Amino acid sequence: MTDRPKRVEFREEGPREGFQIEKTIFPLADRVALVEALAETGLRHIQVASFVSPKHVPQMADSEAFFAAIRKRPGVHYAGLWLNEQGFARARATPGVDLAGKLSLYASDAFARRNNGCSAEEMAQRQRSWLALYQEAGVAMDYAIIMAAFGCNYEGDIPAERVVALARYAASICAERGMALPKLFLADTMGWGNPEQTRRLVGMVRDALPNVRIGLHLHDTRGLGAANLLAALEMGVDLFDSSVAGLGGCPFAAHGDAGAAGNICTEDMVFLCQELGIETGIDLEALVECARMAERLIGRRLNGRVMHAGTLAGYRARKAAAA
Amino acid sequence: MTDRPKRVEFREEGPREGFQIEKTIFPLADRVALVEALAETGLRHIQVASFVSPKHVPQMADSEAFFAAIRKRPGVHYAGLWLNEQGFARARATPGVDLAGKLSLYASDAFARRNNGCSAEEMAQRQRSWLALYQEAGVAMDYAIIMAAFGCNYEGDIPAERVVALARYAASICAERGMALPKLFLADTMGWGNPEQTRRLVGMVRDALPNVRIGLHLHDTRGLGAANLLAALEMGVDLFDSSVAGLGGCPFAAHGDAGAAGNICTEDMVFLCQELGIETGIDLEALVECARMAERLIGRRLNGRVMHAGTLAGYRARKAAAA
Repeated sequence: MTDRPKRVEFREEGPREGFQIEKTIFPLADRVALVEALAETGLRHIQVASFVSPKHVPQMADSEAFFAAIRKRPGVHYAGLWLNEQGFARARATPGVDLAGKLSLYASDAFARRNNGCSAEEMAQRQRSWLALYQEAGVAMDYAIIMAAFGCNYEGDIPAERVVALARYAASICAERGMALPKLFLADTMGWGNPEQTRRLVGMVRDALPNVRIGLHLHDTRGLGAANLLAALEMGVDLFDSSVAGLGGCPFAAHGDAGAAGNICTEDMVFLCQELGIETGIDLEALVECARMAERLIGRRLNGRVMHAGTLAGYRARKAAAA
Repeated sequence: MTDRPKRVEFREEGPREGFQIEKTIFPLADRVALVEALAETGLRHIQVASFVSPKHVPQMADSEAFFAAIRKRPGVHYAGLWLNEQGFARARATPGVDLAGKLSLYASDAFARRNNGCSAEEMAQRQRSWLALYQEAGVAMDYAIIMAAFGCNYEGDIPAERVVALARYAASICAERGMALPKLFLADTMGWGNPEQTRRLVGMVRDALPNVRIGLHLHDTRGLGAANLLAALEMGVDLFDSSVAGLGGCPFAAHGDAGAAGNICTEDMVFLCQELGIETGIDLEALVECARMAERLIGRRLNGRVMHAGTLAGYRARKAAAA
């Protein structure tokens, strides 16, 4: 029935997603404490902050100071997001930022225009300049991400063939420069994905690029996050973006609902993996404590489930002790 | 890959679950309005209220008046919950209550003692008296439910074999009286279930009782509700309990967290079915409006996802209109 992987890797996006979407700017020390606690859980990749316009995103204005303040744990990658050359230059100038080379592609032209002010085709062309820039800077290519790969609020359903073509394109422009594309993320940016589509899309992309590791960036916007992740696991996917406590949200939600769910919740998905006997390298109890820390920090109820109900380990331990 | 059913039925439990767990007693007219709106969505089975001690559960003290006030829609079953003979007598005396015969079994002895004040074995024995009572009253047997079938906060993991034995027992005591057992619900009362276990348990119970329709009463306590439902669908399960807006909660959650998630959310799961091409007979847009009505009524953010993000129908319609 299943090709489930033995081990799954989660890339934590909570700090950037969570602190960026809030109106409040939270104290630096609190944000640092959360990142440091996350790094103690076994997570190996944490997206800390963005290098974006401080005018447009004042919550991320102190990204340099944020990175500088974090006590780094060896073996943990502390990632930063950049969207343009200026941001990349800031990231490069900041000690401790993991400079993984990234290509960004849009499966929806309407979304590219709205989110990035250019067509999906222009965006695809620009990726060649990024590759040149990375090569010049000695930054290794890490991954490509295809946004709105499962559907788009501005364009509707997205044909799987278009996503496959973009995946091939990403690999081909890397090959043009003699570079490999190690990973490819399919992003369900606006929460349109369903399990059947997840299986089909993963299967098609894998057939097209059998040597590229496929990752999924899933959102729980419409409550199918866990079902979609399960479907992906059963297709052998072993790499997911997620967010502690379900931090973050969906800026594209209908009703202007600021509280609509965003990324899938890291600790809930780690719990799923554990119950299925899949290794994650993560201490779930410690991660749940991070989720609770995030909730105290943000100051309102967050979307995570296990953080509110507790894990099963305590119950099982008590049972074992009584036996 | 899949034995997914063509059509799935949801039994709505939101009104009883939701209003029973809240400290507030909401105005009768508001509760009636919610049930009447739910009955317009295509839902065929709505659990309205409990006939339990008004001293212990004052929120359900006016169940007779509640049932009386509802404008009944033909073809919709308005169910009431009873736990003892007195409650059953009240339900029988209340016009408009769907008197489906029910057997209740506990897969956890510790939970039976805690929740019901007797052993699981005593509880099982008592079901014979219920059958006699139903037969006497001319009430047809409808279903048995096995509580804590996936695990228990008081007893830990529950062996699948014990659940199968209880399922056989339920069918056998019906057979003793020449009655059939039409349906059997496996309840993940405390949110211990995972997709692998769901598949295994459904498979084992079906092997034991191939002629009994299996239903699942799933909780989203630890965020796996959608994944467990998907696993069940792929085992051919076509009957689920659920709760509009995710109304209700988990009285057994750790941390005394009153807001921990309870039943799976009806409209999110209907959305999942729709996206998989499975019929539910439910108007999703109308159901989402009911969820929003429930949220306004309860007065705080509820757990449903689609109700906050919106469905995909509007986006698709706009796209189709523009094409």
